[in-house]
Amino acid sequence: MLRVDERGHVDYDQLEELLQNDLGTKTLVSLMHANNEIGTVSDMERISRLCENYGALYHSDTVQTMGHFPFNVSKTKIHFLSGGGHKFHGPKGAGFIYINSEAQLKPFIDGGGQERNMRGGTENVYGIAGLAKALELACENMAEYRQQIEEVRSYFKEKLAENFEDIQFNGDYDGDYLYTVLSVSFPYSPKSELLLLHLDIAGISASGGSACSSGAEAGSHVLAALGADSKRKTIRFSFSHFNTKEEIDVVVQKMQGILPQVKSMAEA
Amino acid sequence: MLRVDERGHVDYDQLEELLQNDLGTKTLVSLMHANNEIGTVSDMERISRLCENYGALYHSDTVQTMGHFPFNVSKTKIHFLSGGGHKFHGPKGAGFIYINSEAQLKPFIDGGGQERNMRGGTENVYGIAGLAKALELACENMAEYRQQIEEVRSYFKEKLAENFEDIQFNGDYDGDYLYTVLSVSFPYSPKSELLLLHLDIAGISASGGSACSSGAEAGSHVLAALGADSKRKTIRFSFSHFNTKEEIDVVVQKMQGILPQVKSMAEA
Repeated sequence: MLRVDERGHVDYDQLEELLQNDLGTKTLVSLMHANNEIGTVSDMERISRLCENYGALYHSDTVQTMGHFPFNVSKTKIHFLSGGGHKFHGPKGAGFIYINSEAQLKPFIDGGGQERNMRGGTENVYGIAGLAKALELACENMAEYRQQIEEVRSYFKEKLAENFEDIQFNGDYDGDYLYTVLSVSFPYSPKSELLLLHLDIAGISASGGSACSSGAEAGSHVLAALGADSKRKTIRFSFSHFNTKEEIDVVVQKMQGILPQVKSMAEA
Repeated sequence: MLRVDERGHVDYDQLEELLQNDLGTKTLVSLMHANNEIGTVSDMERISRLCENYGALYHSDTVQTMGHFPFNVSKTKIHFLSGGGHKFHGPKGAGFIYINSEAQLKPFIDGGGQERNMRGGTENVYGIAGLAKALELACENMAEYRQQIEEVRSYFKEKLAENFEDIQFNGDYDGDYLYTVLSVSFPYSPKSELLLLHLDIAGISASGGSACSSGAEAGSHVLAALGADSKRKTIRFSFSHFNTKEEIDVVVQKMQGILPQVKSMAEA
């Protein structure tokens, strides 16, 4: 486990230190490319070089970023990349792993000889086909979609700051960020506590954290690691190229009925 | 591993002996309900009673039989049942496990809290929905479908015996059998060696063994366990309620062009 700074970047010096200490032993470095809750993007190039220097294998969890950022495994040496179809508009229930030809891996689910002995069990054929097609489309239209999404995300950030009191953003939201999410932190109030519920009732889908812990009442371990104020309320908004500025206006309007607003505007 | 007899039934006395020897230690008995290659059906009632008597947990792999046979877990105590959607005309890539409330199980794939913490990862939503609907339909129409399939299977058996030399069937084909498969053993000849290939070319889908080892050239471990003559050629034919006697006629006709036929008929 690596330390992270207040924006969610791992401590690369600590990583190097640990790799130095483990020199000569078989080591796997497994890091998310972008964090699912706060969107902070890790420096793949830098991690790759460190792993190369110290003979470690490198796995990057690219579930959040695949189809949204370019990857070049000929240029950046990564041993394993994992991804999930539904994060780039493919079907739910199908994912993939890229395995560098130098890396050896024992199957986790064995039995049958399916998928070149790497995963036993009858294949999810339409899921796999759908994933492949969705990734193709995502890569083809990446630049265009990115521009659309960045615009919507920026617009939302502006509108939030304009309209509501003491808005903060979690993660490296204006640095190395995943443009499909925005983690918004609202000051504590009895109203902000119920914000997610009210958004849901208003037909607006947002997340209290990650889907992996949906329904769980425990606070986010990600926000805790950043040293975030646990009294504040965080909501993760996600964007796709299907979202529009008009939808942002609706979200902001609904939120105006729920949250305390910026005084100067509320008085106007 | 239990011994099996020449029809593929496990040695229940050996099972009891092993359970006796393991009395007091935590024991899991895992047996297929019906074997996928030869269709021999195990005696669930008997295994369940043995496990109950010796305090063992009982898992039955019902992938081949779910949707084709009735199950009553209130009557027969089984701790775990596993099934796969595509075996009862549901989608490929989705399966399920039934876990008796008395049984405790650690998840094999953890991480997220999905599926009541039993399997981390975004759910295959349409696969799960499709599986549930397919199982509902299979159970609703079980008696009718079974009759149709039994008729087609019997008709095929008759036609094979009538038309071809030295046909044998593997497994408990006329005793406790899975009615959706028929494992047919042909005498060795250069022609029977190529039978599967020729059937494939003729547009007839049959299997050399199990999908789990498709493409593998090694002989079937199931047939080896029965003490089957490894020189003979075995083909596993599968039937659904979509198959007809007319299709059987086509299969037999195609096979007449490939295999040596019964002399009296060939001479007629």
